[in-house]
Amino acid sequence: MSKYWSEIAKNIEPYVPGEQPKNKKYIKLNTNENPYPPSPKVINAIEQAANNNLQLYPDPNCDDLRNTLANYYELSSDQVFIGNGSDEVLAFSFMAFFNQGTPILFPDITYSFYEVYAELFKLKYKLIPLDDNFDIPIDSFCIKNGGIVIPNPNAPTTRYMSIECLKKIVECNMESVVIIDEAYIDFGGESLARFVNDYPNLLVVQTLSKSRALAGLRVGFAFGHIDLIEGLNRIKNSINSYTVNRLSLAGAKAAFEDEPYFKNISSKIINTRKKVIPYLKALGFKVLESKTNFLFVSHNKTHAKIIFRELKNDGILVRHFDKPRTHNFLRITIGTDEEMDILINKLKNIISKTYL
Amino acid sequence: MSKYWSEIAKNIEPYVPGEQPKNKKYIKLNTNENPYPPSPKVINAIEQAANNNLQLYPDPNCDDLRNTLANYYELSSDQVFIGNGSDEVLAFSFMAFFNQGTPILFPDITYSFYEVYAELFKLKYKLIPLDDNFDIPIDSFCIKNGGIVIPNPNAPTTRYMSIECLKKIVECNMESVVIIDEAYIDFGGESLARFVNDYPNLLVVQTLSKSRALAGLRVGFAFGHIDLIEGLNRIKNSINSYTVNRLSLAGAKAAFEDEPYFKNISSKIINTRKKVIPYLKALGFKVLESKTNFLFVSHNKTHAKIIFRELKNDGILVRHFDKPRTHNFLRITIGTDEEMDILINKLKNIISKTYL
Ligand SMILES: Cc1ncc(COP(=O)(O)O)c(C=O)c1O
Ligand SMILES: Cc1ncc(COP(=O)(O)O)c(C=O)c1O
Repeated sequence: MSKYWSEIAKNIEPYVPGEQPKNKKYIKLNTNENPYPPSPKVINAIEQAANNNLQLYPDPNCDDLRNTLANYYELSSDQVFIGNGSDEVLAFSFMAFFNQGTPILFPDITYSFYEVYAELFKLKYKLIPLDDNFDIPIDSFCIKNGGIVIPNPNAPTTRYMSIECLKKIVECNMESVVIIDEAYIDFGGESLARFVNDYPNLLVVQTLSKSRALAGLRVGFAFGHIDLIEGLNRIKNSINSYTVNRLSLAGAKAAFEDEPYFKNISSKIINTRKKVIPYLKALGFKVLESKTNFLFVSHNKTHAKIIFRELKNDGILVRHFDKPRTHNFLRITIGTDEEMDILINKLKNIISKTYL
Repeated sequence: MSKYWSEIAKNIEPYVPGEQPKNKKYIKLNTNENPYPPSPKVINAIEQAANNNLQLYPDPNCDDLRNTLANYYELSSDQVFIGNGSDEVLAFSFMAFFNQGTPILFPDITYSFYEVYAELFKLKYKLIPLDDNFDIPIDSFCIKNGGIVIPNPNAPTTRYMSIECLKKIVECNMESVVIIDEAYIDFGGESLARFVNDYPNLLVVQTLSKSRALAGLRVGFAFGHIDLIEGLNRIKNSINSYTVNRLSLAGAKAAFEDEPYFKNISSKIINTRKKVIPYLKALGFKVLESKTNFLFVSHNKTHAKIIFRELKNDGILVRHFDKPRTHNFLRITIGTDEEMDILINKLKNIISKTYL
């Protein structure tokens, strides 16, 4: 604590991201990255951009990339906002649409950054408890509120909500903005993006970090009514005119132009997910049904904390959240088939060892 | 205006960056970019990074780059903060160190983003008038305040302040944080970076956008006491864990490892600046003495607005700020010798035409 810190800096509790170890010896199943590299066309586009006017500022409006995304989702480009990772897009959304008065709503078990944003911007918030299956109770989101944010599928629970259910939430909240965070939508879910024309209060947020295998590039985006996008631009242009650099703009565009590659790696991950679940169940794990690139699991005998520690000793990083309802769960990113084989073997040892 | 906007989104007046035209026909002297490309070693480092684990998140702590910068300025790495352009670093600094109580201070003629940040974060502020030569009156900054931000050299005035004068301002403000924005320090000024050990309240902000010819990469940084850097990290980690992507980290590091290239392009710009000033004066321009990569000029007969418009017609973009004390000035970035020759010729025509 320093006397030079602002009241805000003194009072916040920052988000703690999963470890990014510098030595390469870990199998990294802790931050929901893609186990496959990005499309070769992305690398190529970045190399070209590196050689082209890097001394000049990027396009502050990201027109080219916005057009690409608008075409992809059959929207108009002024319904698209681009940011430096979806974390930035979410932070700007909190600033643009939520006020300090009526509480905003989000699930009690969800992406922990929402609470951090709410604290940072001094927003009141109400945690809506997930039901016993960790599913989202629709009616609980139909109460007076100052805004809503829900990930679909939810993280870390992996649970997916149908378009119909989400529409109900959007429809019973026409006076506030409903943000649907679709970070993991490409692993088996259906996006709400094409419904932003129907709802002036719906903002859909996505990222290149997961299904597009570009966590290292930092690009996120939002789709919404032109007024919502303008609100986001007002915030962005009051903080940093150029949030997305030339290389990110070029790489992101190329990622959306190589659909076969994207389809291929996504279905590989979905297949690996399908294959690994029975093995985990056979070892005594409860595995929530997942439409994401990770699994949320809990063992019937060995505590998650122990498994977490043992896996780390064995060179495998997974994520453990030491919170009331989830302290006995682990979040495990889907890696390659080979990585999951190693994981299963290590888990087998850990479980049998701790049984004794 | 939308009913879905927050009070903040409704009330701010965003910054308007200089035009970034998409067609290539303009000579761009409007956003203080470097006319030279970045070092080939930077391009090379980016190409390598593009091929190396782009599916993984970047190091959230930017350790490698922080070490490079710390070595460069003979500091320790925990005295260094990295951000997505110095605009982001400045925005985070306002959040980290300034409160809503006592007014913060900055010059009445300065980088217009400061006012935008103050409005965004609802900070009271007091504009300290520059003197008639557009120099910064030291004593006016020695009054009770909640923080200070001053660019050295100042923009758009190009005026430089000596280390001794700045130290006086830092010393008479030991209860508040003094931010010195050194965006243009490498064009003839001396950096305060090596004095951050002496003052717990001094934050020095720099950027790769100008002297390192990397506006397209978006990297800025700050040097300060370890407590100030921790304050910045608290804000950053409450907004976006990973603000600087893998390519930017790699490119920025390489930029600081190619000193000869940096020295070479910086001295070319300084030489061009020296050469062009007499020509401008001969045309009837008043030219403020500059230690930046741009000039702040005013003509004794033709109004800046007219020159701005005519230059744009002629394919040259410069910057005009339509504000009380500066509406008759133009900010002209130093381009290559060839670009400045074209500028001088066009100006000659414009001036003689409007004389008639
Ligand atoms: C639900 C959710 N939203 C958003 C993000 C942020 O993703 P990024 O900032 O990489 O786009 C994550 C990352 O883990 C996430 O799990
Ligand atoms: C005085 C000053 N500070 C900061 C910046 C921001 O630079 P960047 O965000 O590109 O690092 C600028 C850009 O023009 C500037 O003139």
